[in-house]
Amino acid sequence: MQLEIDLSYQVSEPGCDFIFNLHAAETSCQHVVSENLSLSQSLTPEMFRDSLSGNRYFRLRGNPGILNVSYRATVNVAPNLVDPGSIPETPISALPVSILHYIYPSRYCESDRLSKLAIREFGGLWQGYSRVLAIQNWVRNHVSFASNTTNSNTSAVDTIINQVGVCRDFAHLMIALCRALSIPARFVTGTDYGADPILGPPDFHAYVEVYLGNRWYIFDPSGTTIPMGLVRIGTGRDAADVSFATIFGTIRSPAPRIFMKAEFDAQNDWTLPYHCNQALSTDQP
Amino acid sequence: MQLEIDLSYQVSEPGCDFIFNLHAAETSCQHVVSENLSLSQSLTPEMFRDSLSGNRYFRLRGNPGILNVSYRATVNVAPNLVDPGSIPETPISALPVSILHYIYPSRYCESDRLSKLAIREFGGLWQGYSRVLAIQNWVRNHVSFASNTTNSNTSAVDTIINQVGVCRDFAHLMIALCRALSIPARFVTGTDYGADPILGPPDFHAYVEVYLGNRWYIFDPSGTTIPMGLVRIGTGRDAADVSFATIFGTIRSPAPRIFMKAEFDAQNDWTLPYHCNQALSTDQP
Amino acid sequence: MQLEIDLSYQVSEPGCDFIFNLHAAETSCQHVVSENLSLSQSLTPEMFRDSLSGNRYFRLRGNPGILNVSYRATVNVAPNLVDPGSIPETPISALPVSILHYIYPSRYCESDRLSKLAIREFGGLWQGYSRVLAIQNWVRNHVSFASNTTNSNTSAVDTIINQVGVCRDFAHLMIALCRALSIPARFVTGTDYGADPILGPPDFHAYVEVYLGNRWYIFDPSGTTIPMGLVRIGTGRDAADVSFATIFGTIRSPAPRIFMKAEFDAQNDWTLPYHCNQALSTDQP
Amino acid sequence: MQLEIDLSYQVSEPGCDFIFNLHAAETSCQHVVSENLSLSQSLTPEMFRDSLSGNRYFRLRGNPGILNVSYRATVNVAPNLVDPGSIPETPISALPVSILHYIYPSRYCESDRLSKLAIREFGGLWQGYSRVLAIQNWVRNHVSFASNTTNSNTSAVDTIINQVGVCRDFAHLMIALCRALSIPARFVTGTDYGADPILGPPDFHAYVEVYLGNRWYIFDPSGTTIPMGLVRIGTGRDAADVSFATIFGTIRSPAPRIFMKAEFDAQNDWTLPYHCNQALSTDQP
Repeated sequence: MQLEIDLSYQVSEPGCDFIFNLHAAETSCQHVVSENLSLSQSLTPEMFRDSLSGNRYFRLRGNPGILNVSYRATVNVAPNLVDPGSIPETPISALPVSILHYIYPSRYCESDRLSKLAIREFGGLWQGYSRVLAIQNWVRNHVSFASNTTNSNTSAVDTIINQVGVCRDFAHLMIALCRALSIPARFVTGTDYGADPILGPPDFHAYVEVYLGNRWYIFDPSGTTIPMGLVRIGTGRDAADVSFATIFGTIRSPAPRIFMKAEFDAQNDWTLPYHCNQALSTDQP
Repeated sequence: MQLEIDLSYQVSEPGCDFIFNLHAAETSCQHVVSENLSLSQSLTPEMFRDSLSGNRYFRLRGNPGILNVSYRATVNVAPNLVDPGSIPETPISALPVSILHYIYPSRYCESDRLSKLAIREFGGLWQGYSRVLAIQNWVRNHVSFASNTTNSNTSAVDTIINQVGVCRDFAHLMIALCRALSIPARFVTGTDYGADPILGPPDFHAYVEVYLGNRWYIFDPSGTTIPMGLVRIGTGRDAADVSFATIFGTIRSPAPRIFMKAEFDAQNDWTLPYHCNQALSTDQP
Repeated sequence: MQLEIDLSYQVSEPGCDFIFNLHAAETSCQHVVSENLSLSQSLTPEMFRDSLSGNRYFRLRGNPGILNVSYRATVNVAPNLVDPGSIPETPISALPVSILHYIYPSRYCESDRLSKLAIREFGGLWQGYSRVLAIQNWVRNHVSFASNTTNSNTSAVDTIINQVGVCRDFAHLMIALCRALSIPARFVTGTDYGADPILGPPDFHAYVEVYLGNRWYIFDPSGTTIPMGLVRIGTGRDAADVSFATIFGTIRSPAPRIFMKAEFDAQNDWTLPYHCNQALSTDQP
Repeated sequence: MQLEIDLSYQVSEPGCDFIFNLHAAETSCQHVVSENLSLSQSLTPEMFRDSLSGNRYFRLRGNPGILNVSYRATVNVAPNLVDPGSIPETPISALPVSILHYIYPSRYCESDRLSKLAIREFGGLWQGYSRVLAIQNWVRNHVSFASNTTNSNTSAVDTIINQVGVCRDFAHLMIALCRALSIPARFVTGTDYGADPILGPPDFHAYVEVYLGNRWYIFDPSGTTIPMGLVRIGTGRDAADVSFATIFGTIRSPAPRIFMKAEFDAQNDWTLPYHCNQALSTDQP
């Protein structure tokens, strides 16, 4: 997968700090073959990696004027296909300690308020991948996608009431419902392939990973992408943790430019992403 | 119907104002045969009637010490039974002007936030009494009754999320959903007959009236009473308008005592209230 | 005062109902000398007046296509100037019954949640006009004016947190704080004169009236107008009650055009509005 | 410091999972000299330590019946006293990567909504320990302490409106205001010494640590304890992360019993905790 991300900022005052989370993640099913970061200002970004999430960041202090950030990467993405019928939920007593955080409520996923709703809707279902799929479908049936309907304060509870939102709102609601049932779920940022004519051009995307049977599985509650073609950038509890750019100062910025290209490559065993009925895990068995 | 209401207050400071809305309403289907109000302090309450709602109030300034308020009334209640299949909704263009307020949002009924939800759930249904019944059933299926789960700040939007509440919360949610579809709905306070062993003793109750086909109809979304036996005290946009007692000062108060008795009375054409499948209107045709 | 309001709608489906509240109110200090309403479609609007508020409405069903609504009026406005030091608050026991509704919480003015805040900030102040002025100043100091920062769901509680808003948000917050102290307050819509170069052109405006010493007084918490030049259109509990146009259907609409002109007119005793230190009452003494 | 914690649960169904965070933390200023955990059921708790926070947990599956959990520890606590005037804030560009999470909003600390308020109140103050002290004092002045006024859904935004709460609410609000200014802050659970007659008996407590000049400093916004005598149990983003007991099932439980005793011990250099004007850091310089 060829990935190009171009961001541009008009910095209006000295000492404007940026923390970016733009680099494609390294996971057991996603390998960064090559990558390049270039900046229009002569700055030395401080690169770092969060050991818990594996997210890769860079921090810099921009100077007044234009700051262009260009990221180019060749990424090999191959999520593991698993038979959905074979995937159980994980009992609390067997959850790895590092996973426990993902059953607690977070800023935009107020699972503590949703236990009655979640139990009424999903409490009687067979516990496994299919129950999480039922949650995803419930979100898709109760929320319609519309740009510019929500803002950076919008949370899962808001979205249940509003019944409209963008990809991040779909993700927050699905995560909150999973956690309300003590199923670990996390927020993922990335880029979507967007190849399908009805899905629009490639863009940043927010989606979900749910922990089932000792592995994380991809879910896209918004239904606007081909999940197999998603390139993961960051994961966290919700959007509060994984912004593409956290900016401490006053800037102006046009919309980012995203380009992705998937190619058949016999050597690296690439195929074009497609919609499939298998569960997609980002972890090895 | 014999109605007895006894309230008791421990007033701790001079100059504590009370506004009570305790008197049974006079409506076209509810007639107060006789009534008596007695106070344990020698006060002359100021009686008044709100011309818009017909609610009857009295205002007084309590002295420090015990203030007992006792209301006794014999009330003839006979809601009009109407064939549900014959009851249409009223188009906006035909709504009487005095009714328009009941399609707007109010403190505890944020109908402005619920239009998408209401249209998705009920937008495709046949427009008439049966649609309002569908709304009532939705509320009953999505909210469970439990005492002491909510407080005086709880609104319809909270109840959708919490899925638990008391009669006032059921009423607020049903009202909000009706208004979100531009169906006029109002909040009613009263007393419930409570005769059925499983329904508990008589008590104050909050329920709903919906305006359909030029008349108001009774709905009890909580499902905890026999609607035919409800004695109306006050109506308003929501609980903010119709408190049994609004108190401006510091008091202590035990729970009120309510007693109701329905008797067969050939002369006045009383019968014991019963569950029926007819629609109950509080207005004459 | 010459007042011109031009609204334009693109109606896309048959049977689109409109309820307008555009006519200048008739009050004891505001007299409509002449007025004219014209519509671009040949419709006969149903005119009505709410007896409680005095608001004047018209209702019509628009046809598909362009619907232009033009209102022209000559209005004589002369609020009564009163010495602020002479204006007391009204005790609960002396409030007229028709005023009581304005001490209860409403959709956008959740005064029930603000009693602790209101008492901490204003509970110790002398009770009278000056205390209400202190509330107005608190709102002005805690909220900054910025267009497009809020929406039609934004309430007083939101504005305390956000600390930003438009005129309607300032009004809702001031009203909620007054009611939290049992001071009756209501929402007013109108047009502002806008003559001052820094105040921008004339526009629709939302402001506040507070009931003190048996009369209603004008307050403009947003501080963006000359209160003496405000022409009242509607009053209600909050913005839920008094929209310029409530529309039941799908329309598109450009921004309205508002024009106001104040002229010196010896015969009618008009002067240009100016900022004054007197209290402005809309009622006769 | 002698610490005794006794918890008791009535487990009503098989397979009830518990995750406890009861063990005193090991930090550079807090040393666990000895400790003992005993259970009334013969269970082998799974002990683990979160590497990021240092929190110590144990997980077990309770059997139906009574489950008593008793923890005894001797803990040497000696926070480092630092001159407040010497403590600067840390610029974003110098914040350690592991600290960054503590400037983002979390479930009960919606700092993303409070930036305008925080900047208006504290934006002009000198940046350092004294500014954080000003935030603590603001919280103390705007919120009054009262038991049973809030619940497990209550967040910082609620507390600004309600102006009442318990220690956890004070902590959430202070944390949210710090993060709104990009000052890292975290939630801490522990036990308070409670020796002062007016401070009541020892109890669980929730308080705050703020990151300044490369060290964490203790703040107790509720003002109900002697900070020097606090024994830290857990830290996290907010109360969602650090519950004493997270329980997955239906139980009944009386109030916990807490006992603490501080003794003068020349060998270990213990003194009784006292109120001091120095800043208290939990990290070595």
